[in-house]
Amino acid sequence: MMEEVAGAFGSSASFALRLGQTVFSSASLLFMCFGVDFYSYTAFCYLVTVMGLVIPWSVTLLVVDAYSVFIKDLQIQQRIVMIIFLGDMVLSYLSLAAACSTASVADLLLEAGGSLCPARLCGRYQMSAAMAFLSWFLSSASCLFNFWLFSSL
Amino acid sequence: MMEEVAGAFGSSASFALRLGQTVFSSASLLFMCFGVDFYSYTAFCYLVTVMGLVIPWSVTLLVVDAYSVFIKDLQIQQRIVMIIFLGDMVLSYLSLAAACSTASVADLLLEAGGSLCPARLCGRYQMSAAMAFLSWFLSSASCLFNFWLFSSL
Repeated sequence: MMEEVAGAFGSSASFALRLGQTVFSSASLLFMCFGVDFYSYTAFCYLVTVMGLVIPWSVTLLVVDAYSVFIKDLQIQQRIVMIIFLGDMVLSYLSLAAACSTASVADLLLEAGGSLCPARLCGRYQMSAAMAFLSWFLSSASCLFNFWLFSSL
Repeated sequence: MMEEVAGAFGSSASFALRLGQTVFSSASLLFMCFGVDFYSYTAFCYLVTVMGLVIPWSVTLLVVDAYSVFIKDLQIQQRIVMIIFLGDMVLSYLSLAAACSTASVADLLLEAGGSLCPARLCGRYQMSAAMAFLSWFLSSASCLFNFWLFSSL
């Protein structure tokens, strides 16, 4: 029906991108959640909320891409590509915002030092922010590829 | 030579977008700079740096758009549109990152209260972050329109 855009919805590159997003966003959530009192800082609560949105979105599209790659090619419709593009765009902006907020608060706590941020906890905050950045990067790549596909339909 | 994309390079909507970017990024820089010791926080230094990149970029493209709208239509080349798209993309991500960092640090300082953040200063930090958000919004709109133009060339 149409030429395939590498990395856009339904291709195997897209499957890889979604897999990466799932892994990195889950890692970010886990680093932030376990053994950390994240609810005492707004920025960390925001990161947890955003990751709670990104993970189901990535997993859903991972499953759809897996179906399309391994079982049966899906018909690509313009409306669906637009929805996926918009979702990706919103979620990539949200995850960049969450990553930056977390990173800057972690940096401020690290400078303040002392009881606010023992080395063990601050390392976790930073890892969580790093994972959120990686997740953002893959998510914005997906967004661009889908936009390319959408504008070529 | 080709149909014009509203909001993309060389159109009058683009001129308006660039004007808004220039105004908001300058406002963000001014709120942060005057009478505030921004150099004591990494996030605020980062905002100042990013706005120092966004302002010349917006002003340059504002002038080019003004020339194209009021004086003489410019020939649109694919390579130039791609450069503008890439620049917009990078700068919009940077300004979103700066806005989020500033907002989260300002929020943390506001919670900490007391001598760290007198009401006058904190209000300025928040205004600066708000202006940076507006600048990001216009910048990402420009980026999308230019990408649309690029993919239709």
